Amino acid sequence: MSAEAVDNPVYYEQLEDMEDDFEQVDLEILRIQDKMTRDLYAKRQKIISQIPNFWPLVFEHAPPEIDEYIQPTDAAVIVSALKNISVERFELPNGHPRSISIKFEFSENEYFENTTLEKKFWWRHAKDGWEGLVSEPVEINWKADKDLTNGLLGLAKKIYEDDKAGKGDENTEAKKELIKKLDDTSLETVSFFNFFGFRGRYISEEESREAAKVAEEKRKARKEGKEVDEEKMEEDDEDEDDGEYEFEIFPNGDDVALALAEDLYPEAIRYFQDGQELAALSEMDFEDDEDEEMGDDEMGDDDDENPSKKRKA
Amino acid sequence: MSAEAVDNPVYYEQLEDMEDDFEQVDLEILRIQDKMTRDLYAKRQKIISQIPNFWPLVFEHAPPEIDEYIQPTDAAVIVSALKNISVERFELPNGHPRSISIKFEFSENEYFENTTLEKKFWWRHAKDGWEGLVSEPVEINWKADKDLTNGLLGLAKKIYEDDKAGKGDENTEAKKELIKKLDDTSLETVSFFNFFGFRGRYISEEESREAAKVAEEKRKARKEGKEVDEEKMEEDDEDEDDGEYEFEIFPNGDDVALALAEDLYPEAIRYFQDGQELAALSEMDFEDDEDEEMGDDEMGDDDDENPSKKRKA
Repeated sequence: MSAEAVDNPVYYEQLEDMEDDFEQVDLEILRIQDKMTRDLYAKRQKIISQIPNFWPLVFEHAPPEIDEYIQPTDAAVIVSALKNISVERFELPNGHPRSISIKFEFSENEYFENTTLEKKFWWRHAKDGWEGLVSEPVEINWKADKDLTNGLLGLAKKIYEDDKAGKGDENTEAKKELIKKLDDTSLETVSFFNFFGFRGRYISEEESREAAKVAEEKRKARKEGKEVDEEKMEEDDEDEDDGEYEFEIFPNGDDVALALAEDLYPEAIRYFQDGQELAALSEMDFEDDEDEEMGDDEMGDDDDENPSKKRKA
Repeated sequence: MSAEAVDNPVYYEQLEDMEDDFEQVDLEILRIQDKMTRDLYAKRQKIISQIPNFWPLVFEHAPPEIDEYIQPTDAAVIVSALKNISVERFELPNGHPRSISIKFEFSENEYFENTTLEKKFWWRHAKDGWEGLVSEPVEINWKADKDLTNGLLGLAKKIYEDDKAGKGDENTEAKKELIKKLDDTSLETVSFFNFFGFRGRYISEEESREAAKVAEEKRKARKEGKEVDEEKMEEDDEDEDDGEYEFEIFPNGDDVALALAEDLYPEAIRYFQDGQELAALSEMDFEDDEDEEMGDDEMGDDDDENPSKKRKA
């Protein structure tokens, strides 16, 4: 009774061309949207900066795609020290609309020295046709014995720098140590701050530009009805990329970046309002109760709260 | 350690004004997007119509927000008879960009006579400030003993017509029967076809227009710094709407409509490609195996397949 797969490469190509056409529209929409909302986000930030605990409350009611990575100690840092978040499509107006930077601002805290942590994600093309977000590890200056990533972030940064210096094929001490630590770590309990270590595929700007050009040329050729040799391209892929993610300390970093940039950040007021409503409700419930304060690990437990897209006055 | 709620109505108002500003941009973006993609969707439909089982395969790999409502028998109907889906923002270019119609086309099948089922959702405003999608039950002409909704859909339709005829306050036979049937039914195993019975709040076009006007005037007044009496508006709300959903046979119909219109439909090619990839994989795995066919209830079981937003060539 199940639907059968169809094996007609002509339709496949037509579908992929359609996908390309839709993608061009999506990119144009992102450009327009960025232009139309820039001033609004600036205005929003001014208002938000006057509201104590705005971002901590938003994070307490973050969508599950983000919430699932926030451990109780991460929540403690966020609640006590997160002052601001801003997201920017930093390559616009002339670069790729899908490249994003996410900037976290912190007040002084007992965990690290940094007051700003900025994580940039570049939209890159690979020679095998892949497109997606790549990034570089961002170092955090942990205070003594406060490294929430248990050294993983520092090692990820070191390995990345070694790779950039041409030592990609060497089995360095840092690599050995990272692999050992990863073996001893459950990815399920890993700190949210490992997010700052996400790399994704290693694709230089030049390689990406070249690959995008090739893809664009193939696309044009297909549109003009010329035969395009797709097979060879895909084979390169398999040789090259095995083990690309071996030193990844936060494998879903790109998905979390998208959830932050396309959900939490634009919908922040709604998540905040949800938080306010729930706080008001729990105040009513416990009006005569001494135990009004929520526990530290509350943040990890409310997966099922999804702010409705419908608005209430 | 938890973030505390803030109680400053001035910021609340500013945040709500911001939300309004963002909403205006979102609506404009929807209008632009609709204009930019209309031809593309028409072109896509032509290609898709040549691919057997396109939509059944898409549904087999539907996102969890839809998949969770598809029972094994629903899946059987979809796989054997679903020919096409189309989504339209039918009030554009001049009406509300959030109103959507979802049209399902079926080939002849053993369950119902209809070849087209069209479900319309209107974006409406209520006097209490609520905004959202409302709809009308759509009748299905079931063949003998094939009513997958167990009579619920027919009753919902009858009650809706009674309400429209001014019998909203009468406790009709249809209402009694519906309530009794709902009591005996677990909403978890309810057929996807109950979706066609979704109503949402009962708000006439005129009431909506009036409410939108009032909301817009308040918004303007607030922007000009005048005091606005919000309290009274909210109180009306509570008296009026209790039990509004008492006769709802598919309470999350608006969310499912959004998942269809904003995810399944625009991303259909990707869901299809995911299905193709998995089918190819399972063919490899079971090449020498006789049991290649997937079971009927396969459709309900693959919640964790999420097509990556990243594209692969």
